[in-house]
Amino acid sequence: MMVKARKYVVRKHFQGLPKRFDYEVVEYELPPLEDGEILVKAEWISVDPYLRAFNRHTPVPYDQFGYQIGLVVESRNPKYPKNCRVVSHKGWCDYVIIEKNVLEAETEAYKLPDLQGLPDVLGIDAIGMVGATAYFGFLHICKPKAGETVVVTGAAGAVGTLVGQIAKIKGCKVIGIAGSDAKVKFLEDELGFDKAINYKTEDINSALKEAAPKGVDCYFDNVGGEISSIVMGQMNDFGRVSVCGSISSYNEDPRQMPQATIIQPSLVFKQIRVEGFLAGRWAKPINHWPAAFEELLNWVKKGDIKTKYHITVGFDKLFDAFVGMLNGENLGKSVVKV
Amino acid sequence: MMVKARKYVVRKHFQGLPKRFDYEVVEYELPPLEDGEILVKAEWISVDPYLRAFNRHTPVPYDQFGYQIGLVVESRNPKYPKNCRVVSHKGWCDYVIIEKNVLEAETEAYKLPDLQGLPDVLGIDAIGMVGATAYFGFLHICKPKAGETVVVTGAAGAVGTLVGQIAKIKGCKVIGIAGSDAKVKFLEDELGFDKAINYKTEDINSALKEAAPKGVDCYFDNVGGEISSIVMGQMNDFGRVSVCGSISSYNEDPRQMPQATIIQPSLVFKQIRVEGFLAGRWAKPINHWPAAFEELLNWVKKGDIKTKYHITVGFDKLFDAFVGMLNGENLGKSVVKV
Repeated sequence: MMVKARKYVVRKHFQGLPKRFDYEVVEYELPPLEDGEILVKAEWISVDPYLRAFNRHTPVPYDQFGYQIGLVVESRNPKYPKNCRVVSHKGWCDYVIIEKNVLEAETEAYKLPDLQGLPDVLGIDAIGMVGATAYFGFLHICKPKAGETVVVTGAAGAVGTLVGQIAKIKGCKVIGIAGSDAKVKFLEDELGFDKAINYKTEDINSALKEAAPKGVDCYFDNVGGEISSIVMGQMNDFGRVSVCGSISSYNEDPRQMPQATIIQPSLVFKQIRVEGFLAGRWAKPINHWPAAFEELLNWVKKGDIKTKYHITVGFDKLFDAFVGMLNGENLGKSVVKV
Repeated sequence: MMVKARKYVVRKHFQGLPKRFDYEVVEYELPPLEDGEILVKAEWISVDPYLRAFNRHTPVPYDQFGYQIGLVVESRNPKYPKNCRVVSHKGWCDYVIIEKNVLEAETEAYKLPDLQGLPDVLGIDAIGMVGATAYFGFLHICKPKAGETVVVTGAAGAVGTLVGQIAKIKGCKVIGIAGSDAKVKFLEDELGFDKAINYKTEDINSALKEAAPKGVDCYFDNVGGEISSIVMGQMNDFGRVSVCGSISSYNEDPRQMPQATIIQPSLVFKQIRVEGFLAGRWAKPINHWPAAFEELLNWVKKGDIKTKYHITVGFDKLFDAFVGMLNGENLGKSVVKV
């Protein structure tokens, strides 16, 4: 079977917000499968902030990576038979061959977990890298205890919505910081956050003081910058900060990164621990993701975790979905249905 | 016995560098000892950066705290007989009564350890809070491994000189950052640092790249601010940062703290852990200081740790010694001989 495939290639390092001309959509013919390989037709493709962040660390040109869910349409690997579904990091392409060694490693490609009747798209959301990021990044780094106060920034995004709900499951008081009144309403009314703050219209320092009169114990940071300095200024002794991302700076010139109020005085006098992480840490050398997926799936089934999607339809709309997400237009997880 | 005592009382919160008129020297008569109390005559008084830092967190007026070594001149406590020496946190005073409960707690007052013939002043230096700070803050938070590259700021100060030497004992490559050519020379020639950088005259970013071509694994931070952002920008995956102090900001207006390049991007992509600490963490509820003192004393005896003192003589010179230390005029530990 000869297959024409399309993929997005990044030609240039982005300057500021990614531009359409930074990408080229390349159409090419896929070679025949070799032993151990599979041919996958993408069905759902994920757009996430880290795609922007890693741009500056990746030599150009490169194929736009990212998680996707696809249907195996041809297989020369008995572990991945035709018609099963695969989650992979093959990114923005409509058809793709997954190599034998990638399949064997089982971290950048693995079978879509049994979602027990729930929608496939969960595989790039709560039951995928996003879920692992929220689960491990929050539970293993913040180590929350019942009754503690947790702050989440980027609260209405894919990871933020999950972290806040996991914190509620663990008996914490949860305060979300997000960028619109609609997001605030969503977090408070639909996801059960105790309080949400619109950082674009409210004074974060005083709003947070009012929302967290006993101080902040855990902070899950998706944004970095001044907001983080303010939150850390209100933390209690031995507070824990999990740094998942720094989206406030992703579009900045790497040679001239933004400044913010220094955090060292807060760190010393409150004895705060701050740790950055990438979710892959819990996939290698031992893969702990499947165990997390099992627990996350139970929470979704019980309704303790609600998922919310911002769905864009069409392979041609990947770029728009990505930039829209970077601009904060999404509520919940941004995904593209191919 | 009726004793006239003098003590420094802080009357105002400092603005910028402490001023002489922020202090008042009060002369008063000590009451007779009650059961369980001791009367101490100060011999050595320590001046340290944290005295400046805690000023803003302490309601005024307050007696200037700080570590001191004194001789017991009268005792109603059999555990602390006359003529033994006591380390206490009683600070800037010439005679002082130490209360029963303070003596029983054994953290803010304890017998000067047996220094096996070495000078008493070690009790407010390597075999005191300063030593505990360097020992626990570096070993327990940075968790250095042999062959790793360690950066220390405030390298020529009391804690910095100890951290660098402990790092050498542990088989690390040590780079110190300090504020004068004399300090650089001292660190390289006398203390065996592999390299020292004068932050006032050198471009830290390029000097550090040259000194640490394989990147930085551990960073012991005494200063905070932009230097710390630069160091963290050159750290390796899973780097560890121990934040001991933030002396670059201690004289700043607390309502308007300085800004520096944000560190969150470094934290995320290198998965760096940053932790602030106070040495008292290892004194309560279980007192681990004596075990550290034992190991530190052995290192001093073997010559693996060299101590250096900046000695000011006279109770009346405490203020000058303090401000001189804040201005970076000291090489090694600043102490006052009463």
